[in-house]
Amino acid sequence: MEALKARILKDGRNLGNGILKVDGFLNHQIDPELMDACGRELARRFAAATPTKVLTAEISGIAPALATAHHLGVPVIYARKARPITMPDQVLLTVVPSHTKRGTVELIVSPEYLTAGERVLIVDDFLATGHTIHGLARLARAAGAAVVGIGVVIEKTFEGGHATLSSLGVPIESLARVTDMEGGRIVLA
Amino acid sequence: MEALKARILKDGRNLGNGILKVDGFLNHQIDPELMDACGRELARRFAAATPTKVLTAEISGIAPALATAHHLGVPVIYARKARPITMPDQVLLTVVPSHTKRGTVELIVSPEYLTAGERVLIVDDFLATGHTIHGLARLARAAGAAVVGIGVVIEKTFEGGHATLSSLGVPIESLARVTDMEGGRIVLA
Repeated sequence: MEALKARILKDGRNLGNGILKVDGFLNHQIDPELMDACGRELARRFAAATPTKVLTAEISGIAPALATAHHLGVPVIYARKARPITMPDQVLLTVVPSHTKRGTVELIVSPEYLTAGERVLIVDDFLATGHTIHGLARLARAAGAAVVGIGVVIEKTFEGGHATLSSLGVPIESLARVTDMEGGRIVLA
Repeated sequence: MEALKARILKDGRNLGNGILKVDGFLNHQIDPELMDACGRELARRFAAATPTKVLTAEISGIAPALATAHHLGVPVIYARKARPITMPDQVLLTVVPSHTKRGTVELIVSPEYLTAGERVLIVDDFLATGHTIHGLARLARAAGAAVVGIGVVIEKTFEGGHATLSSLGVPIESLARVTDMEGGRIVLA
């Protein structure tokens, strides 16, 4: 997606250690026009898979997942990292390794809204190691739902996420692929 | 907003102690059509105030704030509750009391994206005590920005939020007002 790639090159910052800062349009401040365009494009790429629900993880996945769900005309559900008091006692929970939290985080979904027979499209802001997205796929399958695809805004191809997710056997689409961040550069495919 | 009110009455649950569960369309699963309609209506009500930015707090404020910002054609920024490694060392931070977290939470915004001269519309999912929204207003003013309005999806009128925010002297708009939750009921204005 050219508009996204141009924005990454203009406003993205390489902070070292593989950290790509896109706080100006995706992870802190959000550009709604760009997000809508990303959602439209992901919806277009997965329309034939006829998803019935979009699944993401809080926090930064919410914006692109909401935009994608809007263009698909289906609901979106975001996995929580802490169980709110409004959730039932019995939940779907999985644990994923976390870079930034130095340990693990929980991903929690209420079985009220993720059920057997659903066709789930997983959407997230980043695909890096793939751990979070793999955790979301486990939640969907634990609910008896089918994962029909994975769509991400930005993929960092050098962190092995594609390999981690290949065992799921579903199509993976990235709107922009960062192939190299060595030496302060941001190289896009 | 009639579609929102009907949805609250249909899918909202009164869990007692003033807790209104709307996890089916706002706080866990999101209805993108309804959220878009809420954003369009908030944008309509505040267009004359010419906001240059929408400000909200993670997590549940993101969806309605993004929809509102999209219809206004301006960026949206969400205050973080923990400082990510992508943020500069010097940030804008305020502390607000929290019901659910039994204590306080921090609201953190990068001064890169909230600056003097901006006209800020604060949007959140709920107005209850008003503490979070008041904290967002303090962040905006600490940045030298002007708060031009406050828009929320659901107001619980019996928790005093309106009074807490009245000192700010800005218009407050709620798309649905819950006036009574005694005895298991959900009464809308």
